[in-house]
Amino acid sequence: MAKNTKPSKKPSPPGRGTLQRALTTGQSQKSLTLGELAHRLGGKVVGNKGISIRGVMTIDEAREGDITFIANEKYSKKLATTRASAVIVSPEFQAVGATLAVAQKNRAGASPAPTRPALLVTENPYLAFARAVDLFKPEEIHPKGIHPTATICPTARLGQEVSIYPRVFVGERTRLGERVVIMPNVYVGEDCQIGEDTILYPNVVIYTGTIIGKGVRIHSNTVIGSSGFGFAPEEEGYFPIHQVGNTILEDEVEIGANTTIQRGALGATRIGRGTKIGSQVQIAHNVEIGENTLLIGQVGIAGSAKIGSRVILAGGVGVVGHVTVGDDVKVGARSGVTNDLPSGGTYLGYPAEPIKKMRRTQVAMHRLPAMMELLRSLKKQVAEIEERLSK
Amino acid sequence: MAKNTKPSKKPSPPGRGTLQRALTTGQSQKSLTLGELAHRLGGKVVGNKGISIRGVMTIDEAREGDITFIANEKYSKKLATTRASAVIVSPEFQAVGATLAVAQKNRAGASPAPTRPALLVTENPYLAFARAVDLFKPEEIHPKGIHPTATICPTARLGQEVSIYPRVFVGERTRLGERVVIMPNVYVGEDCQIGEDTILYPNVVIYTGTIIGKGVRIHSNTVIGSSGFGFAPEEEGYFPIHQVGNTILEDEVEIGANTTIQRGALGATRIGRGTKIGSQVQIAHNVEIGENTLLIGQVGIAGSAKIGSRVILAGGVGVVGHVTVGDDVKVGARSGVTNDLPSGGTYLGYPAEPIKKMRRTQVAMHRLPAMMELLRSLKKQVAEIEERLSK
Amino acid sequence: MAKNTKPSKKPSPPGRGTLQRALTTGQSQKSLTLGELAHRLGGKVVGNKGISIRGVMTIDEAREGDITFIANEKYSKKLATTRASAVIVSPEFQAVGATLAVAQKNRAGASPAPTRPALLVTENPYLAFARAVDLFKPEEIHPKGIHPTATICPTARLGQEVSIYPRVFVGERTRLGERVVIMPNVYVGEDCQIGEDTILYPNVVIYTGTIIGKGVRIHSNTVIGSSGFGFAPEEEGYFPIHQVGNTILEDEVEIGANTTIQRGALGATRIGRGTKIGSQVQIAHNVEIGENTLLIGQVGIAGSAKIGSRVILAGGVGVVGHVTVGDDVKVGARSGVTNDLPSGGTYLGYPAEPIKKMRRTQVAMHRLPAMMELLRSLKKQVAEIEERLSK
Repeated sequence: MAKNTKPSKKPSPPGRGTLQRALTTGQSQKSLTLGELAHRLGGKVVGNKGISIRGVMTIDEAREGDITFIANEKYSKKLATTRASAVIVSPEFQAVGATLAVAQKNRAGASPAPTRPALLVTENPYLAFARAVDLFKPEEIHPKGIHPTATICPTARLGQEVSIYPRVFVGERTRLGERVVIMPNVYVGEDCQIGEDTILYPNVVIYTGTIIGKGVRIHSNTVIGSSGFGFAPEEEGYFPIHQVGNTILEDEVEIGANTTIQRGALGATRIGRGTKIGSQVQIAHNVEIGENTLLIGQVGIAGSAKIGSRVILAGGVGVVGHVTVGDDVKVGARSGVTNDLPSGGTYLGYPAEPIKKMRRTQVAMHRLPAMMELLRSLKKQVAEIEERLSK
Repeated sequence: MAKNTKPSKKPSPPGRGTLQRALTTGQSQKSLTLGELAHRLGGKVVGNKGISIRGVMTIDEAREGDITFIANEKYSKKLATTRASAVIVSPEFQAVGATLAVAQKNRAGASPAPTRPALLVTENPYLAFARAVDLFKPEEIHPKGIHPTATICPTARLGQEVSIYPRVFVGERTRLGERVVIMPNVYVGEDCQIGEDTILYPNVVIYTGTIIGKGVRIHSNTVIGSSGFGFAPEEEGYFPIHQVGNTILEDEVEIGANTTIQRGALGATRIGRGTKIGSQVQIAHNVEIGENTLLIGQVGIAGSAKIGSRVILAGGVGVVGHVTVGDDVKVGARSGVTNDLPSGGTYLGYPAEPIKKMRRTQVAMHRLPAMMELLRSLKKQVAEIEERLSK
Repeated sequence: MAKNTKPSKKPSPPGRGTLQRALTTGQSQKSLTLGELAHRLGGKVVGNKGISIRGVMTIDEAREGDITFIANEKYSKKLATTRASAVIVSPEFQAVGATLAVAQKNRAGASPAPTRPALLVTENPYLAFARAVDLFKPEEIHPKGIHPTATICPTARLGQEVSIYPRVFVGERTRLGERVVIMPNVYVGEDCQIGEDTILYPNVVIYTGTIIGKGVRIHSNTVIGSSGFGFAPEEEGYFPIHQVGNTILEDEVEIGANTTIQRGALGATRIGRGTKIGSQVQIAHNVEIGENTLLIGQVGIAGSAKIGSRVILAGGVGVVGHVTVGDDVKVGARSGVTNDLPSGGTYLGYPAEPIKKMRRTQVAMHRLPAMMELLRSLKKQVAEIEERLSK
């Protein structure tokens, strides 16, 4: 088969080459004046509105024609040395950081940038930066149609303009919405629904009965709807609890790589609209997560836990089964949530406690050896006193 | 190739559609009277033996015709509002919970269930529930035969009635027992043995030389027998220790998704009969695990550790290398086992300590700031006393 | 297609059968005298130089003709019972351990080995053992050429003597060096570079724009270059920060199974030459890791952290974003690094502290309940004293 020998004669999935050129150069073919950019992102220019911006890059790697940003004071001194043509900053930074940077530049005598970069001043530099990347990012183009090596079961129904890459499997009665992209070696089981504009990256596995909304992205080797951990002890060994529920991912959910979400034992495991989940995350059966919640990498959530909306669980946080975490709760990295948490607080540690309390405890912990010393000497003193008094 | 275009002409893996209807409705085509069900599960009925049960569902989502269960007192009040036709409960619950539930119902005035559900009273409600799910679960049907896109190496030997899905790879000299099911994109290396009735879900990878028993289930993207972490420091950098051992999974082992079990450096990594392993678990080279042990999600076990039988390691527990954990040990979530643990105890924390001791320590920790206060004031008092006495 | 039916007529990837015979017997076809072996590994023989060594095995499983090693005093007593023909030991062990072992042998009266094993005495037994395994390990042979079911995009360029297994995908403009091995179901995106002698195991996914050096090994289901976790909060929900950077793995990097390395948001995520990464590891965008560093299983490193060279992070260690860990730092299992760490220290705990300090703190923690007791009784005594004095 000619298409499989090299060089190939047969048309094969065309390039995300544009994306790639951007990946390697940090610049696309697009170009905007700094003035136009400020208008699109919202913000005012300090410096030359007319300069041409062709890409976004980190402050260290930026070259002429790039715009970069400083969201973290820690990096303010770099303003003196960056080769970027423009820098997105906050009003506070403009007031303090910029002058600070110049002072440091003079002090440190660091090899100076050829020209002082212009500033794009905005209330939310991080959001402006994100929008700038979006403006300059090249289109991610996927070929329309179904590759001949894909297996589409007879009763599956596919929407218009889908992109089905080589060796994809789509099970019986599964429905794909318009413009769905399924990359190589993805398995989608029977009776699934996948909403329009959703992208599944290579080697993702979607188990039977999963329901996925619109504009969802799931990265490689993530598994949705595998069987949860359910075993009832009997005289000897365990009786398996067949997991006959399913998994529901609402619109605009994004999931990283090598993450696992298990289907409900009965009923559903549910991830709410706009929630973002990192890589290497484990979510057990019948967990319910609200909207616009962030779960960073390596988070683990045990069965039937309920997590609210706009919650942030930092990297490696664990949540035990059957607890409820209220809306807008924040939990620090590697903490262990062992009880219900009311809405709105910030927690740390294992068991997770309000962060101020936990910090005091941590400080005290490191004074423990000294405390023990003091305690011993006091004991001695008191003993001596009692001896004197008893005479 | 017609089979790859849509709609497909070629027979393709037939449905687990029955399963799916169950997945979406929670009910199958089967129907039993509550009396028959009580007879099969063991237990006595309080209420109408004649009512027809057609499925099992959670207490919140149950409808007429469903049976549900209450294993956790926490949910007892739901008895007043569930729409289930019957509820599996323990004798204690029947005595206490039921009346409690009614009381709460009257107090709360919650929208009442149309009819009070019948009770199925049994010593082990959780096991009875598991058996009920098993009774009503539809068969998971896999098509027999070998899909034409699978690669079966010439010297591989396959048992009767195997189901080999598209694009499976089976290496040289590998033997598959009867009724083995291997789903799409699974890779099985050379010289493996897989026992009868074992199921490998999509994208599982089995490295060369792995031995798998009967009735084993391995979920998607799990890797069995990859190379362990062995590097001997030399003058500069590391000399790789080639991992030439293998991996042995005994009968009825079940493994979740995205889990990794590494082959022995020399000799074998061994998982004992009936042991159940969750998702996102990492088991290093030459670990030995006994029978009917439970490792929940995100557990990590370092090289050459020995874990006994009927052990339970809760979510995220870590075990360091070369330690021995005795039979029937339980370790609480996120604990770190750094030393040998004798049989039968329950442990918590890092380093893991007997749970009662650890709980006292945790309580004391949170009193630390107060203790420091008290200590300072005592120091002051004692100083004053000494001053008075010295006069 | 005959090649897909069983038994197959078509030549298919030939065996790593030699490897496998070694896997199951622990011995290869090679044979060396102990004298020759000592010469090759460096070290002196105590005992019969002439005996024939045909393989390497663990001290428990070794048979006649095997050499084994004792690196850990803990196992010294096994010298009395091993059936190995020879044992690699350190000079210290020879002086102490050997006689100790004999003493224990006499005391324990354990069923003795048929003959006392010869000793191969060397300064670095572990390295000598690694080299012995390397000497006896059979070649891992991969068939040269491109399997007809692989998809090689037209503009991809492949070096001489590559081994491309079934159903591999190689994207546009990607370049593979000489002797690269890509096993079944691997996806390599567009515009990647993969250096000579690199091996990708089954189901690995390499995202667009990844650059991989020479002699790299990446184990199954690992994902390189997936999109990092970048979302800028806006009025409602989050604005995605498109991750347009890439990932660079330098020469001789080795990566375990089910690990995730995310590409840079802008610029690159970089793993330095000779660094070894375990399984189930999560490395976030723009992390930079030096040379010959070891990251054991389940380590997690947050965005933009910088890890030095020759660092060792034990299993499950977490590192927060934007911190710097100096060269030669060691961090104990499950610790959490929350601040910059200077070069060369050893740290433990969360937050990670110098190990000696942390051990003192841990000891003190477990004395806390006793301390509270003492504190209460002192308080009482002092109160009594004051009362007496006030009279």
